[in-house]
Amino acid sequence: MSDTPKSTPTKPKRFSTVEQWDMETDVAIMGFGGAGSCAAIEASDAGADVIIFEVTAASGGSTALSSAEVYMGGNGGTAVQKACGYDDSTEDMFNFLMAAMGELADEDKIRMYCENSVEHFDWLVSMGAKYKNSEYKERAIMAVTDDCLLFTGNEKSYPFREIAKPCPRGHNLEVEGDNGGPMLMGILTEQVGKRPIRVEYNARALTLIADDDGAIQGIVVRIDNEERNVRARKGVILCAGGFVMNQEMLKKYVPQVSIGNIPIGNPGDTGAGILMGQGAGGAVIHMNEAFITLPFYPPGSLTFGIFVNAQAQRFINEDIYHARMAHHILKQSGQGIYLILNHDDYEHPPFLGAEVAGTGETIEELAEDVGLDADMLRHTIEFYNQHAANGEDPLFHKHEAWLKPIEPPYAALDCTPGSGVFYPYFTFGGLDTLPTGEVLTMEREVIPGLYAAGRTACGVPRTSAGYGSGMSVGDATFFGRVAGKAAAARNG
Amino acid sequence: MSDTPKSTPTKPKRFSTVEQWDMETDVAIMGFGGAGSCAAIEASDAGADVIIFEVTAASGGSTALSSAEVYMGGNGGTAVQKACGYDDSTEDMFNFLMAAMGELADEDKIRMYCENSVEHFDWLVSMGAKYKNSEYKERAIMAVTDDCLLFTGNEKSYPFREIAKPCPRGHNLEVEGDNGGPMLMGILTEQVGKRPIRVEYNARALTLIADDDGAIQGIVVRIDNEERNVRARKGVILCAGGFVMNQEMLKKYVPQVSIGNIPIGNPGDTGAGILMGQGAGGAVIHMNEAFITLPFYPPGSLTFGIFVNAQAQRFINEDIYHARMAHHILKQSGQGIYLILNHDDYEHPPFLGAEVAGTGETIEELAEDVGLDADMLRHTIEFYNQHAANGEDPLFHKHEAWLKPIEPPYAALDCTPGSGVFYPYFTFGGLDTLPTGEVLTMEREVIPGLYAAGRTACGVPRTSAGYGSGMSVGDATFFGRVAGKAAAARNG
Repeated sequence: MSDTPKSTPTKPKRFSTVEQWDMETDVAIMGFGGAGSCAAIEASDAGADVIIFEVTAASGGSTALSSAEVYMGGNGGTAVQKACGYDDSTEDMFNFLMAAMGELADEDKIRMYCENSVEHFDWLVSMGAKYKNSEYKERAIMAVTDDCLLFTGNEKSYPFREIAKPCPRGHNLEVEGDNGGPMLMGILTEQVGKRPIRVEYNARALTLIADDDGAIQGIVVRIDNEERNVRARKGVILCAGGFVMNQEMLKKYVPQVSIGNIPIGNPGDTGAGILMGQGAGGAVIHMNEAFITLPFYPPGSLTFGIFVNAQAQRFINEDIYHARMAHHILKQSGQGIYLILNHDDYEHPPFLGAEVAGTGETIEELAEDVGLDADMLRHTIEFYNQHAANGEDPLFHKHEAWLKPIEPPYAALDCTPGSGVFYPYFTFGGLDTLPTGEVLTMEREVIPGLYAAGRTACGVPRTSAGYGSGMSVGDATFFGRVAGKAAAARNG
Repeated sequence: MSDTPKSTPTKPKRFSTVEQWDMETDVAIMGFGGAGSCAAIEASDAGADVIIFEVTAASGGSTALSSAEVYMGGNGGTAVQKACGYDDSTEDMFNFLMAAMGELADEDKIRMYCENSVEHFDWLVSMGAKYKNSEYKERAIMAVTDDCLLFTGNEKSYPFREIAKPCPRGHNLEVEGDNGGPMLMGILTEQVGKRPIRVEYNARALTLIADDDGAIQGIVVRIDNEERNVRARKGVILCAGGFVMNQEMLKKYVPQVSIGNIPIGNPGDTGAGILMGQGAGGAVIHMNEAFITLPFYPPGSLTFGIFVNAQAQRFINEDIYHARMAHHILKQSGQGIYLILNHDDYEHPPFLGAEVAGTGETIEELAEDVGLDADMLRHTIEFYNQHAANGEDPLFHKHEAWLKPIEPPYAALDCTPGSGVFYPYFTFGGLDTLPTGEVLTMEREVIPGLYAAGRTACGVPRTSAGYGSGMSVGDATFFGRVAGKAAAARNG
């Protein structure tokens, strides 16, 4: 069997052909990242024997590469939310997430997530995660200080602020800089180590083992170049990430990410778990949805600028989350996306990678430099300025906190896809699962003994239009736990 | 088995459980529309025994409900193209269709279609289709006269006109009014009748019959409330239309069509053929793509107007095909899409159903009537007018033939989705097939004995962004023929 990523389902080995079991356990878990570690801990705590199979030499997965922010709230608020003076209601969180995911929303998953999010916070703390009772008030992707709470999505921007009372729900670990991922995975790995959980590193899961009724009985893994048959009496949980590193799957399902240039994920995000689940009869859903973003903040000051398209028109309120911006950028006609601002508002955006497309003391100079129609650009800026001076944005309802006239000297950053500016991306599609993690067939029938969590499943976050930071690690850890408990409780 | 449309694959009956064959044939065809009739004729002409199973009491399918325009050209031109003075090259047709379908294009199908399109024209003529050697020069969805040739897509509009030399390729039968569909299906039905092809009406196909290797051996149909096992020695061809009448499938795969209000298709377009193919192991592709359109012409005079969004901004060249317009309308932020024009250019658009949103002697009056920002609207119109007077559209490159300043008195038509204006729709997604019609698994392996054509397969037309009238009936009849020949040639 080749290790080259493919895009076709991986057929399970037939149970009846298994001649011997090389290992036996109650619950076998593929992948030792955020979802896998949480699944293992909960399954073990429920009394199940657990083995984790990790393809690399260490735990971590894509969670370790992330900021490990976790999106949590509701039920009156987490301890941090309360300490910071926020009284977050479950309904506000639910209504926000439902609106954010729009027609793609999985109401059952969102409901469970919102109702149990404070409990999840407490559990993370009980594991050893430290969160400071403080708020980070900058407009940011994550807190670069050790402060905890911050707005990480579109809660305060139109139209969401009119749908649900805005509340910050991004929880950042008490650590300086972008070091939350290694810290969280360190904590979870230590917790795994404290339990009677066996971990096999450098162990590549190859295929599931299914009986004639389609129930999953185990998994085949390759360790030391030998295939081992692993009996999983209660179930197999696929926590092997998404498919952002699988070119063939990207081309087949999400060709639009070809405008992106930075895949977010670890080299193991080859879709192997999704394909194994699919081969066992699992349905895949929303495979055409991807997170694509333009990380134009921090610094927040750039949000005082306006984004214009090739026609020098604004097209969305600029105070939105950065992935929602990219979502709308992809809808524009013509070639050319520019962030225009007053030169004094310019600070270096560390994650953007944009070139300066032009500068000017006058709008005409700027337009000529950038290659935009000067009359269009003049009207766009003047119209914006005139209303911004009154704290209004009649076209797109940008929040007044970010409204002020754009004065000369002007600068324009080139945010055109393909210009070299950063458009990171990862995948949202995956196995169709119940909130319990049970993998569903196309008939939405449960495949006995098969579970998935994290980006191997299609979870709460499903569209760039409504994504917020912390939803991925939140979804992976939360539903990893749920799947671990569900598998352990199964009478296999 | 219930007749209520479902969205889950229909599992095939096991060959080994068939106790008796109620009918036997070489080729069994599900559906007697454009694809099915052409498949039957070619299979029969190749010497195969053929039975068509049609769920209704008559032939027709969705082809009979259409104008039956067929998109054809290349190879120096069809007889009509030549007579009208067009020298159409295969490469121009190929390059146009490749650009029109963009990243979704099936190069092999488009290549085969373009290379054999003139032959297909000659075959249709040999069947009895009559095409007049004349061109219909109005901007239209179909010719309402008995003239034949017309531009039916985006060939003349930016950017396509710069990619391939524009040529009209829509072929309209020699019949007055919108009566091409019944005429074409009459002709094809008559040709079926001349051949030793058995037709079973009121015959609902229920499931395929597959052997243990997955090869298709027949089909189960219900006739007179009895299930009949039909042996198909060479193959089964699924020509049962798309899934525009299946609410559950629409919701699952193309939620965006919820803005549409007129499904285009016949009541049998329930996806039954797709689900049977899927149950037999066939892969479905591009299920999230749909044709959605805003039929704002004829009359062509409305193309002198401009479309603006809720921000009173233009967003695309208005000389494009009507489905491309809807494709871009769906990308706009906010609620509100208006077609603004000089009152004298207004003629009743028979297929649009739009209310007048406002009128005015001045832009300010119009803006107030419609509820748009007057300053934005003034700039949009004045900018457009200033350049239109010079025959230019620097923003969107509308063709100069449609450029002239919009003078008062003004009128605005409400084209906002949901306002009551017509947004017809149908589905593009379907079974993954080779150009031969052979249905492919997710591994892209051929399922022996299974073919699909028409909207049961995912064919040449795949996105509203590049669709043109005549591509559906063109694809259905062309690839129906190919599938009929391929099935007849198979050693079953």
